[in-house]
Amino acid sequence: MRELFSFLPEERVLVDKEDLLLYAYDATPSRRYPIAVVRPVSTEEVAEIVRAASREGLSLVARGAGTSLSGAPLPCEGCVVVDFTLMDKIVEVDETNAFVAAQPGVVYEELNRELEKHGLFFPPDPGSGSVCTLGGMVAMNSSGIRAVKYGTTRDYVASLEVVLASGEVVKLGGKYKKSASGYDLKSLLVGSEGTLGLFTEVGLHVIPKPSHRAAMIASFNDFEKAAKAITKAVAGRLDIAVLEIMDSPVVEAVESFSGISLGSAEVLVLAEVEGFDTSVEEEIRRVAQIFAEAGASVELAFDEAEIAKMWKARKAALPALARLASTLLLEDITVPVSALPEMMLRIRALAEKHKIRIATFGHAGDGNLHPTFLADSEEELGRARAAIEELFRECLALGGTLTGEHGIGIEKRPYFELEHGKAAQVMRDIKRALDPGNVFNPGKIF
Amino acid sequence: MRELFSFLPEERVLVDKEDLLLYAYDATPSRRYPIAVVRPVSTEEVAEIVRAASREGLSLVARGAGTSLSGAPLPCEGCVVVDFTLMDKIVEVDETNAFVAAQPGVVYEELNRELEKHGLFFPPDPGSGSVCTLGGMVAMNSSGIRAVKYGTTRDYVASLEVVLASGEVVKLGGKYKKSASGYDLKSLLVGSEGTLGLFTEVGLHVIPKPSHRAAMIASFNDFEKAAKAITKAVAGRLDIAVLEIMDSPVVEAVESFSGISLGSAEVLVLAEVEGFDTSVEEEIRRVAQIFAEAGASVELAFDEAEIAKMWKARKAALPALARLASTLLLEDITVPVSALPEMMLRIRALAEKHKIRIATFGHAGDGNLHPTFLADSEEELGRARAAIEELFRECLALGGTLTGEHGIGIEKRPYFELEHGKAAQVMRDIKRALDPGNVFNPGKIF
Repeated sequence: MRELFSFLPEERVLVDKEDLLLYAYDATPSRRYPIAVVRPVSTEEVAEIVRAASREGLSLVARGAGTSLSGAPLPCEGCVVVDFTLMDKIVEVDETNAFVAAQPGVVYEELNRELEKHGLFFPPDPGSGSVCTLGGMVAMNSSGIRAVKYGTTRDYVASLEVVLASGEVVKLGGKYKKSASGYDLKSLLVGSEGTLGLFTEVGLHVIPKPSHRAAMIASFNDFEKAAKAITKAVAGRLDIAVLEIMDSPVVEAVESFSGISLGSAEVLVLAEVEGFDTSVEEEIRRVAQIFAEAGASVELAFDEAEIAKMWKARKAALPALARLASTLLLEDITVPVSALPEMMLRIRALAEKHKIRIATFGHAGDGNLHPTFLADSEEELGRARAAIEELFRECLALGGTLTGEHGIGIEKRPYFELEHGKAAQVMRDIKRALDPGNVFNPGKIF
Repeated sequence: MRELFSFLPEERVLVDKEDLLLYAYDATPSRRYPIAVVRPVSTEEVAEIVRAASREGLSLVARGAGTSLSGAPLPCEGCVVVDFTLMDKIVEVDETNAFVAAQPGVVYEELNRELEKHGLFFPPDPGSGSVCTLGGMVAMNSSGIRAVKYGTTRDYVASLEVVLASGEVVKLGGKYKKSASGYDLKSLLVGSEGTLGLFTEVGLHVIPKPSHRAAMIASFNDFEKAAKAITKAVAGRLDIAVLEIMDSPVVEAVESFSGISLGSAEVLVLAEVEGFDTSVEEEIRRVAQIFAEAGASVELAFDEAEIAKMWKARKAALPALARLASTLLLEDITVPVSALPEMMLRIRALAEKHKIRIATFGHAGDGNLHPTFLADSEEELGRARAAIEELFRECLALGGTLTGEHGIGIEKRPYFELEHGKAAQVMRDIKRALDPGNVFNPGKIF
């Protein structure tokens, strides 16, 4: 390996077992070792790595922070991991065009800290935002709690520099705001999970950073009323930036482990609106009215300290659940918002049928739920897996998609055709056309 | 032909010269005859047409209203035109999910009239909106004056039913708001100009229809000041829905032919803001202030009659120009907004250098300009074409794209590689993978 990558300094080619261990995982339970790790610092080095791997028939797996919940950056059998964390420069912030160009290894929150100095903002806000990298976000089409208002990473990608399987470097898109020139290759590359090419620079259209926000927490003691109120709020003419849900198993976990009192609510809904003036206060009142009319007890928050307090419960959800069982299987389905009440009922029914604990939180505003399956034994894990397969079938039957923001990776690969049918073959045809040697992240997605 | 398409009733297979004439044109000067026209009414018929054509090695050109300014729906040599105008049903309006499904032949403005009954709105607003079809808009990634605020057709496509070259029908996307599941085939299909598949149903995410608007017209007697003020307005934190520009040759044409007095302005800028309450009035004042500070004389309009009057000049632009010369070559470049002043200077320089009349209007807010070349003789046309080639080179040198909303078609095909370089080959590889027999619209884009 050192010989194959002799164009890199020795310290940027890792082959020792203890070094490789650091690259053998992501946020899924699996562990797989690569045969080597390379750490490029430039586009030219990435291109040379790809040419060398293509020549030798080696596969390459791109990696940022390794925070994936789907297994996308897990090493494949006999692969070389391309670690992008040394390519972490912000190349340019262009205020006039509200554009930023950065290398793929830049961390999401660091990018936003720099943008904030210019009054700008890159909204997709994954849970792993304090550590995850831009390249990973583009590869997975990441998003988070703000997607209901601002969309996903794909909506912001203006340009991409990509190394293809041939080792050629292509530039897609630009700083301009619209184009009708040829196929939209950059949207194809966004969300391709490292299977079509390696990103070496990402350009983003960004937006003015909101200066004002206001929040609401609504506590329901009736599960269906809550789900229906969410649907009503989303269908309304409201400018909601965040609309989160936590069901009773999540509420209980948060109450017992964090000591936050949530009045043993059956369902909690958190909402936030963002803007550029105090009209956010009227808007959150309009949102709150819908939930109050649906029977919730509602609290509002207008300053940062109050809002932060409100968010404590939501932020405690995953850590609190993690203490309830030895294994958490965190799912990520999305259904049309109209189907949210029915989907939540079906999740409850699955818990009963399979005698398994399921705690559900998620981004209700865009129909993206994270039903989290708790298991303490192999036997319980087996029941959880059976329930998850049914969950996927129910979600698809309601017009949904297998993943809102975590990607397919290896975790959802067995179910991919269930969702896409014949379109899965079209994707495979594109993969073969762009990467005939299957160099990039083989065995992922399909 | 009648035999090959014997599964269609005779009156929906056209082969007579006088019938074919109606399909031999689009909005470019070229004329080309197909060998037949078929008029399907269902997805199954479209699939059968594709299977028949694939079997016989015939090529198929999809067609809606034929309003293209790039030649995309012009018949290819020996092709069969698939006329989608009989597939014009609105299948479903779903208020809860703010979603509409329609067949490709539905006319843009008819779709919006139906949506308006539900308080909804599909914003991309091509100049041909009163006649152009949804299928054509998706194929070309159409947009118009509102793209600066609302983006292009691609931003709204939620799902597509597509007939592939194999005759298989695939469904892409759905009613859900976000997904990270596999390649974004629907974004790839949007803007593919009929070269990858035929659309049989389109699902759109739509938005609440704004209830309030306000407009501004700013008249400059200094060209550079106007361009710089536009850049400043766009870079500001303003919620501008429309930002149009007309230069002095356009102003003169409008004044002489429509009798509207525009004070012989050097540059006119029109802006509009849209929203859900009277805050649009404050917002348009903020926009107006930027232009007033830059030296323009500014008028505001707050009611529909005043706004309509303001728009009369803009709407008269193209008809007025059409009366100035026997041939108009309407171009469609987009540059980053920061490059707008420089691009406009270079257009002026091209007019002088090539001794050709160029009148420029366009959607300045997103950097999309329509420099319109006027010619009255073959010799003048030759100079115009030489100037247009230089225009493209200048536009690309400034980081722009060949087309903001008209597509490549046949008109810009010679320049496609200039913009895309090696990425053009990636597009060709995808075309070959999805349509190995080159059934769909051969000879377009690349």
